[in-house]
Amino acid sequence: MGLSLVSTVVRWGLKSGTDAAPVDSITLFVALLCACILIGHLLEKNRWMNESITALFIGLCTGFIILLTTKGRSSHLFLFNEELFFIYVLPPIIFNAGFQVKKKQFFRNFMTIILFGAVGTLISFIIISLGSMQLFKKLNIDFLDTMDYLALGAIFSATDSVCTLQVLNQEETPLLYSLVFGEGVVNDATSVVLFNAIQRFDLSHITSSIAMQLFGSFVYLFATSTLLGVAVGLVSAYIIKKLYFGRHSTDREVALMILMAYLSYIMSELFNLSAILTVFFCGIVMSHYTWHNVTESSRVTTKHAFATLSFIAEIFIFLYVGMDALDIEKWKFVSKSPGKSVGASSILLGLVLVGRAAFIFPLSFISNLTRKSQSDKIGLKQQVVIWWAGLMRGAVSMALAYNQFTNSGHTQLPGNAIMITSTISVVLFSTVVFGLATKNLIRVLLPKTHSSNAVISELADLVDSKSLALPLLGDGKDRESEVGGDKIPRPTSLRMLLSTPTRTVHYYWRKFDDAIMRPVFGGRGFTPYIPGSPDLR
Amino acid sequence: MGLSLVSTVVRWGLKSGTDAAPVDSITLFVALLCACILIGHLLEKNRWMNESITALFIGLCTGFIILLTTKGRSSHLFLFNEELFFIYVLPPIIFNAGFQVKKKQFFRNFMTIILFGAVGTLISFIIISLGSMQLFKKLNIDFLDTMDYLALGAIFSATDSVCTLQVLNQEETPLLYSLVFGEGVVNDATSVVLFNAIQRFDLSHITSSIAMQLFGSFVYLFATSTLLGVAVGLVSAYIIKKLYFGRHSTDREVALMILMAYLSYIMSELFNLSAILTVFFCGIVMSHYTWHNVTESSRVTTKHAFATLSFIAEIFIFLYVGMDALDIEKWKFVSKSPGKSVGASSILLGLVLVGRAAFIFPLSFISNLTRKSQSDKIGLKQQVVIWWAGLMRGAVSMALAYNQFTNSGHTQLPGNAIMITSTISVVLFSTVVFGLATKNLIRVLLPKTHSSNAVISELADLVDSKSLALPLLGDGKDRESEVGGDKIPRPTSLRMLLSTPTRTVHYYWRKFDDAIMRPVFGGRGFTPYIPGSPDLR
Repeated sequence: MGLSLVSTVVRWGLKSGTDAAPVDSITLFVALLCACILIGHLLEKNRWMNESITALFIGLCTGFIILLTTKGRSSHLFLFNEELFFIYVLPPIIFNAGFQVKKKQFFRNFMTIILFGAVGTLISFIIISLGSMQLFKKLNIDFLDTMDYLALGAIFSATDSVCTLQVLNQEETPLLYSLVFGEGVVNDATSVVLFNAIQRFDLSHITSSIAMQLFGSFVYLFATSTLLGVAVGLVSAYIIKKLYFGRHSTDREVALMILMAYLSYIMSELFNLSAILTVFFCGIVMSHYTWHNVTESSRVTTKHAFATLSFIAEIFIFLYVGMDALDIEKWKFVSKSPGKSVGASSILLGLVLVGRAAFIFPLSFISNLTRKSQSDKIGLKQQVVIWWAGLMRGAVSMALAYNQFTNSGHTQLPGNAIMITSTISVVLFSTVVFGLATKNLIRVLLPKTHSSNAVISELADLVDSKSLALPLLGDGKDRESEVGGDKIPRPTSLRMLLSTPTRTVHYYWRKFDDAIMRPVFGGRGFTPYIPGSPDLR
Repeated sequence: MGLSLVSTVVRWGLKSGTDAAPVDSITLFVALLCACILIGHLLEKNRWMNESITALFIGLCTGFIILLTTKGRSSHLFLFNEELFFIYVLPPIIFNAGFQVKKKQFFRNFMTIILFGAVGTLISFIIISLGSMQLFKKLNIDFLDTMDYLALGAIFSATDSVCTLQVLNQEETPLLYSLVFGEGVVNDATSVVLFNAIQRFDLSHITSSIAMQLFGSFVYLFATSTLLGVAVGLVSAYIIKKLYFGRHSTDREVALMILMAYLSYIMSELFNLSAILTVFFCGIVMSHYTWHNVTESSRVTTKHAFATLSFIAEIFIFLYVGMDALDIEKWKFVSKSPGKSVGASSILLGLVLVGRAAFIFPLSFISNLTRKSQSDKIGLKQQVVIWWAGLMRGAVSMALAYNQFTNSGHTQLPGNAIMITSTISVVLFSTVVFGLATKNLIRVLLPKTHSSNAVISELADLVDSKSLALPLLGDGKDRESEVGGDKIPRPTSLRMLLSTPTRTVHYYWRKFDDAIMRPVFGGRGFTPYIPGSPDLR
């Protein structure tokens, strides 16, 4: 869907018309990517740095050097079309996130994730839109109309899932990771609906019927996007299970998985759905079914190949954003009124902080009401980390801003130029400052020595994971039966469903999965025996 | 280098200006790729088909359907820039070929490969150029000048390495594979020199000094391209060996290998070298050193990920060529004089057949003179297969033809249109007819029941591989020492070098490799022990 957002977007006029330019640019860019990986590796133990920030700094330095050597004409190696970002760079990142996500955590917190991603994004959108409408007037920024303010709300409500993946660690803080990243994925669907709404409805006079339409279109978008991803994932599992019986070919299996994952994304784009949601769920289904139907070599290959592609794509984005930030053309207009630009950036940054706080804390409170045991609840320190870790704005915000505030490839209108540079400032500042501080913030608030409620919550996670033992990925059949017999009483009544809805849903899902899904689509323990299959070694 | 060949090339005017077009095209194209893989898998046992021809047929059918639905306006899903072909699609194919090539076979036949690739291509070039010059006059095709005829010679001397990989099997016919594919790689360097020569020198009045210059530039190109590939490969081995000591990260290792392989290709393009040669040798060095320095998971991942990327790229090319063949614009002018087009295609096809025969048989005779044992010699039947398997012309010829005969994106000049359509005809005919027949030809000429010299040659291969035991990839230290002690007498004199030059060179290379190269760059048996390295399971 992101694609149709940037449909009318700027073509910055790719430099590829000349001959030597693209090749030397690509050479330098690839060399810089290698440098980022090496330096990122060397700085791995550093408490401040991570790969994104390294890439961002290298990008900034390179941009500065290019700016000097071209005597201020350009800071770019090449000009990157946002369409390319949505078509080629984003899919591997989101697919890999779905493929490697801890499904148990994700589904256990499903309702909270929806709450944060849908209601939360709406709250943030309203606060940023109304806030900027009020505060920008004080700066004498008067060239924006209502639509622009609403667009600003949508742009700065789009959390950056990519950044989240970089600053939070799935192993160390699984609950936080699943909440913040899951929210980011759902957030995309919400942003799409909001952006479409801004373009289609007259939101300045909102009525209850428009609100209902908005809600309906969100539910429709969420459901269809998810279904498409699940369907493509299941088709891939079925094809590989049926067709490849008796003889396997690792190259074909891997190629088919890559191509079908990409197919789910691009089909979702085609049908104007949320491609991020689709490919995310396709990744979940593929790791639950398809991945178990292929040979051992294919499993190792896909696991690491998807992670590598995602890794390269992430570094690519940050390196590019770093270079892009110094683009002289965007700053030209700002120099005439630097105060306005700094003011606008500060206001937007403040609104991002407030807008996120305004939904994280109340919604966490609501979410905690549904959680029975004390250990399940989201503690205040954890709420602070969730709030902080989702503050970063990244490539998605950039793309949306370009879509809204440019329409000829150049930021000619001074007002638009200020909006673009403010977006860059917020993206850079939030990524660098918030990103740099996240590792330390987590260490201070949730120390590994497991004081107070951190240890309780982690213990609870452990206990919970044993007693629930939802075999969505990691847990085999053995534990499932053991647990099913020993610990959980069979939920036999409606009362059970009402008192522990998540557990009950999972229980029936597991029964359904074992009885119908896995025999048809394969999966752990249900892979047919393949005689003479060329296993690893 | 291919890139600078197509520097002035046609931009067919990418359709991506419109919004929905690229997404639905990409969707259909990805779906077709999946279909090609599935159908190719189902037809695997079929004696006529292979994946290329399946993809070609699916491409033709799709092109036909698009032609019908657009009422004859277009047969394309999207228009593909040859520059993109050289920058993105070709590198994985050639790199993977180098990475997976049986290095022993390749280096054992090194001199024959150079003979075929350099001298052979030159002979073929001369025959096709002079032949078309004479024969086209009889068709009243008089709009071509000397340059065009020379270009035709270069275009139709470029064998298609990609097709070769598809029709010959490295496992079944290792000697033929290494000769034909190796020739295809060297052939690229020769084509580059010839094409440059056509553009720079006045070849209609060739003198001995120009000939010397040509020879010199070939040697320079070959040496520098190879050295660059080797250098990048060694740097990657060194970096991974040194930096990753103590802690490995599969994603980083794989990413670094992919990026550095690509870096070698794009650097070679940048320096106007033969990028195909460079990335081929980079692949060889990486599989000999770098691959042994990474974790077990990285090894499995790289092996299959490179093969998969190459596999997808190959299917991509054939699918595209199939669709491209029906492009209505190219055939528009031809309809006015169909006789000329058919005549020109037939002449060119005949010249390709004759030109290849004119160097395969004499050069095989010469090569056989240097081979001492009867079993080592290239038999007549094998020569026929080598001749036949290198007849296919593919995407490279297409790209060169577009470069020479179009200069505005449209084939407006009738003469140029005929040349383009003739190229398409030759490419399609040679790929489909020669490609279809190759599997059967090999079965008839070199049956698996191992009659006559096929069995001798395969036995010889076996004995030879034991007695030589060059551990360039497959053979470990154990066999090496065992063999070194038992079977080969130590070559102590110059006479040894003269009588068995290849063996002697290999013997000393092996000593050098063990004493200096492997301790520095890693490699089998020389990988440092990494405590706690996260190995595969």
